[in-house]
Amino acid sequence: MNEEEVVDPEHPRYQSLMIRKKIAEAGVKGMLADSAMIAHGRGEAFDYLLGEQTIPSALDATREAAARLVKSNKPVLSLNGNAIALAGQEFLTIASQLGCPIEINIFYRTPQRMGALIGHLKMLNQKLDLDVEIMGGIPDARIPGLEGPRGACQQDGIFEADTVLVPLEDGDRCEALMAMGKTVLVIDLNPISRSSRGCTVGIVDEVTRVAKNLIQFIPQKPAATDWNNDRGLQSALDHIVETMSNRF
Amino acid sequence: MNEEEVVDPEHPRYQSLMIRKKIAEAGVKGMLADSAMIAHGRGEAFDYLLGEQTIPSALDATREAAARLVKSNKPVLSLNGNAIALAGQEFLTIASQLGCPIEINIFYRTPQRMGALIGHLKMLNQKLDLDVEIMGGIPDARIPGLEGPRGACQQDGIFEADTVLVPLEDGDRCEALMAMGKTVLVIDLNPISRSSRGCTVGIVDEVTRVAKNLIQFIPQKPAATDWNNDRGLQSALDHIVETMSNRF
Repeated sequence: MNEEEVVDPEHPRYQSLMIRKKIAEAGVKGMLADSAMIAHGRGEAFDYLLGEQTIPSALDATREAAARLVKSNKPVLSLNGNAIALAGQEFLTIASQLGCPIEINIFYRTPQRMGALIGHLKMLNQKLDLDVEIMGGIPDARIPGLEGPRGACQQDGIFEADTVLVPLEDGDRCEALMAMGKTVLVIDLNPISRSSRGCTVGIVDEVTRVAKNLIQFIPQKPAATDWNNDRGLQSALDHIVETMSNRF
Repeated sequence: MNEEEVVDPEHPRYQSLMIRKKIAEAGVKGMLADSAMIAHGRGEAFDYLLGEQTIPSALDATREAAARLVKSNKPVLSLNGNAIALAGQEFLTIASQLGCPIEINIFYRTPQRMGALIGHLKMLNQKLDLDVEIMGGIPDARIPGLEGPRGACQQDGIFEADTVLVPLEDGDRCEALMAMGKTVLVIDLNPISRSSRGCTVGIVDEVTRVAKNLIQFIPQKPAATDWNNDRGLQSALDHIVETMSNRF
């Protein structure tokens, strides 16, 4: 994607373009399925409608997710290609703060892509002088109700976890994890996606912004509340509606 | 993108997935910049909010665009990679109905990509037994105010045209064409993009649906009206707002 190597810092959408650049570079490294670019574009549109910012309800949801992760006995961060490309370094920091593993779980699983993602996280582990366990390379359990490679997971990772953070998750998998009785924390810019609607805490915000906020919240050990997920999502919708009303 | 070769016709978003497949295939053929996938994803998100359908105000805008094209003395269809990938065949039919040329104009111009796009349209010309003139290969004029390859155009094509249909146009170029005094007809799923807001008639609809509707409208020779672009765009926004309000 040489057309975007240089991003003008004065551009009104500089941050968004820099985020896009990370996705493009990860694509070149073989870390992503082709559909990852399309998925990223969908996210961009929703972020544009949110004003490319963390809205108050998203910050509340992020604090709630931090609380659930901190009080969890066996948390896991379940990362796909886009999440690793965009915020691999931040998620390693979070896993280190929590003392939990990262499990890589990708929709279109190939040995090449899996290898590229594991290699990328191991490189970052070293760079940050961390020792976070990276799971997912050799799955030995299955998420009930999911066919094919999507259902593959690791026994002492996602399978036994009580709390799973799933940025950018597909609806079916989110549903299947909920059906296993887990606390499922979703990061998804679309407030009406099945994942956002069907999880324990839905964070309607861009994944790198969320990861950075989690790093701030986790050491504060916030207390969990009776989270009303529908209320948080409606608040995000209301923000978008506000953006769109009486524009002309 | 072999992960999407088979699309289940029973899938609730079958049409959208089939459209996506066309983009992926065009990418493999070298017709698209990497950013085309991201742009497509952005469009998908807005189409999802519209319910993946032609809303009444978009149909009105399409009829108006047909009227403007029919009464034009020198219309041109200005197509980029995504428009050609998604509806090349339909746009050739429209150009043939109007007796006008197609001019290829792409944001990230390389000889390879230009060659692939011209080749694709020529192949379709033959397949449909049409003889539509394909311009853009050897630009000999410039759109005032646009730097770089984006400003390149053909003297007897876009430069001299009084009416230009520009599906999926970038905001700067739309503005520059308007500044030349042309009637600019935009197809863009984002009702608040600069292109949608700054053109003569903005059609907030998916490009293949619009192209098919234009093919129906053009032979009817509809009469042009005093089109209120803002009203059409607000109507699209209202539809999205309706989708988003009181969901929870």
